[in-house]
Amino acid sequence: MTFENPVFATYVIAASIMILKMMGQGWITVARMMKIGGGFLNPEDAAAGMANPKPRPGQLDPDEYVERSRRMQRNDTENIPPFLVAGLLFALTQPPLLIAQALFFGYVVTRLAHFWAYSTAKPHEVRATFFSIGSLIVIGMAVYTLIYVIR
Amino acid sequence: MTFENPVFATYVIAASIMILKMMGQGWITVARMMKIGGGFLNPEDAAAGMANPKPRPGQLDPDEYVERSRRMQRNDTENIPPFLVAGLLFALTQPPLLIAQALFFGYVVTRLAHFWAYSTAKPHEVRATFFSIGSLIVIGMAVYTLIYVIR
Amino acid sequence: MTFENPVFATYVIAASIMILKMMGQGWITVARMMKIGGGFLNPEDAAAGMANPKPRPGQLDPDEYVERSRRMQRNDTENIPPFLVAGLLFALTQPPLLIAQALFFGYVVTRLAHFWAYSTAKPHEVRATFFSIGSLIVIGMAVYTLIYVIR
Repeated sequence: MTFENPVFATYVIAASIMILKMMGQGWITVARMMKIGGGFLNPEDAAAGMANPKPRPGQLDPDEYVERSRRMQRNDTENIPPFLVAGLLFALTQPPLLIAQALFFGYVVTRLAHFWAYSTAKPHEVRATFFSIGSLIVIGMAVYTLIYVIR
Repeated sequence: MTFENPVFATYVIAASIMILKMMGQGWITVARMMKIGGGFLNPEDAAAGMANPKPRPGQLDPDEYVERSRRMQRNDTENIPPFLVAGLLFALTQPPLLIAQALFFGYVVTRLAHFWAYSTAKPHEVRATFFSIGSLIVIGMAVYTLIYVIR
Repeated sequence: MTFENPVFATYVIAASIMILKMMGQGWITVARMMKIGGGFLNPEDAAAGMANPKPRPGQLDPDEYVERSRRMQRNDTENIPPFLVAGLLFALTQPPLLIAQALFFGYVVTRLAHFWAYSTAKPHEVRATFFSIGSLIVIGMAVYTLIYVIR
C-alpha cells in the first residue's frame, strides 16, 4: 500500500476520480435546483433568502430535471462506495498490473459512460450495458479477493 | 494489513461477502423489474426496446415488489459502507482474533438474516432485531477504535 | 498506516466520529418513527406487535418529522462514505499534520454543524454553507491525492 506500487497507484487514481464523480453529482443536483429554482426537498428551502430570491408556489414539487440527477446520485451511492473498498482489497491481492489497470480504468470508463447515458436519457439498453459492466467488475474483484483469502 | 494476519483476513472475507450482498441487491431490483415489466424509474425505460419488448401504460408506476428491493438497497447503502470502513480500522487495532471473528462474522450473519426477514416481509420485530445487532456491531467497533486511538 | 503516525491517527479519529454520526442518524429515524408511531416504510410494520402496540390507519403515510431524518440519512450516505475513502488515501500522501488536522477535523465540524442546521430547519443558506465546506474538503483531498499520484 505505497504509491510506488503501480497496482496501488492505479487504484488510487481510479478511486480519486470516482470520488470526484460522486461528489460532482451532488453539485449537479444543486446546480439544477438553482437553474430551475425548484425541485427543493425541504420546506425551509422555499423561504425567501439569498439562495431563493424569488419564491414561488411549487418549488417543493418534484422536478424531473432535478430528480434525474438525484436518481444518478442514488445510483452512485449504491455502486461507488462498494467499488472503492472492493478495489482497495483487490489491490492488496497483488494482481498483475495489466489486469488491475483493465478493471480499475474499465470501471472508471463505464461509470463515466453510464453518467453520459443517464444524463442524456439514452435508451435503457445503453445505460444498462455500462451499468452492468461496472457492476460485474466490482463483483469480479470481490469474488477474486474472497477466493484469494480463503483458499 | 497483510492476508497472513488472521484478523485482517477475517475482515477481508466479511467485507467481500458484504460487498457481494450489496451489489447483489441491485441485481435483485433489476430482476424484479424484468419479471413484472414495471417499477421503472426513468421515462426512457418505458420505451420499446430489447429490455422492454412489450411496453404498457403504468410501467413507471411504483410497484411494491420492486420498491421492497429498493428499500433493501437503501438500507444496504446506509449500513454496509460504514461497516466496510469501521471494520478495516477496527482490524488495525489488532483485536483478539476471536473477538474479531465474532464481530465480523456476526455482522455478516445478521445482515444476511436481515435480508431474509426483509425480502419475506417477516414481522417488523424480526427484521429490527437483526438490523439492531448489525448496527450495534458497527457502532461498537467505531467506539472501540476511537477510544483505542485517543487514549 | 499505523496509529503512531499522527496524520493517520487524526484520520482514524475523524473517520470513527463520522461513522458514528452516520449510524446514529439511522437510530434517530427509528426513534422518530417510535415517537410518532408512524412514517413506516413497510406494510408489515403497520401490523400489531411489540414494536407497534396500537396500530392505526395512516402509519405508512410519509411524516415530515421522520422524512427529515431520512433526508439527513440520504445526505450522509451521499457524502460520508466518499470522505472515509478520500481521507484514507489523502492520509497516505503524508500531508503536513496541521493541514491534515484542519481538513479532517474541519470536515467533522462542518458535518456536525450541517446536522444541527438540518435537524432544526435553519434557513437554507446556513445548511448549504456547512454542506459546501464539507463537500469542498472531500473534493480538495481527492484532487490533491490524484495529482500527488500521477505527477
